[in-house]
Amino acid sequence: METTNNNNEGNIFPIGERGPSDYFTGATWITPLVQKGGDIDYMVASVLFEPGARTTWHTHPAGQILLVTDGQGFYQVKGMSAQSLKKGDVVNIPANVEHWHGASKDNRLVHVAISNYKGDINVTWLNPVTEEEYSSVSK
Amino acid sequence: METTNNNNEGNIFPIGERGPSDYFTGATWITPLVQKGGDIDYMVASVLFEPGARTTWHTHPAGQILLVTDGQGFYQVKGMSAQSLKKGDVVNIPANVEHWHGASKDNRLVHVAISNYKGDINVTWLNPVTEEEYSSVSK
Repeated sequence: METTNNNNEGNIFPIGERGPSDYFTGATWITPLVQKGGDIDYMVASVLFEPGARTTWHTHPAGQILLVTDGQGFYQVKGMSAQSLKKGDVVNIPANVEHWHGASKDNRLVHVAISNYKGDINVTWLNPVTEEEYSSVSK
Repeated sequence: METTNNNNEGNIFPIGERGPSDYFTGATWITPLVQKGGDIDYMVASVLFEPGARTTWHTHPAGQILLVTDGQGFYQVKGMSAQSLKKGDVVNIPANVEHWHGASKDNRLVHVAISNYKGDINVTWLNPVTEEEYSSVSK
């Protein structure tokens, strides 16, 4: 059973909806902030990952920006070493690069994500990050 | 003499460079986070307005998003009532609408700005917000 302790203390944005379990492992909470439309060819959301929670492996057809607003976590491109994330970090994720991001096992991670669209698509979800893959990064 | 008390306590991003006095009244500090290029047709910056500081009147040819991360302030479209801003507010500024934003007279305002480009232009600066205009909003 996954944790559902949606503690939003100190967060900038209201707590959102639970991230779908097909695309997220563990408890994540997604707050949509801006939708695509008109001059805006991206969507903006705040995502809270509880400790141990992370995305599945995925790609973005036109890239994504992460602005880390609280906590600690990781960003890993497939085949590369993971990069630590902390409050104030900015990640510029290139198009079509397989990667994941999420919290460390002991801390939450909160980031704003700006997800660029290519046509009507801003993400392609792939396989879960296994416990073995995750525990090799967040020890 | 304008205040230069660049107190960054509690802020997510590092303190930036002083905003140019042609485009800002009072003390503002701009931290660039993401530049235009490749799939990214916008720029992202964090802006700290000290109490009383504000932009001049201006327009964006393809609009701008504000994500308020701390403090209190105002957003005003020309000819309309000002809208109060506080931590967690999101403002979707349409293209070509004359407006200003900034801190209240007693509180700082900090926001992330996502400024969309039309060609190579993301802003057109106009006249300063006068003391009379400002004091009618921030009493």
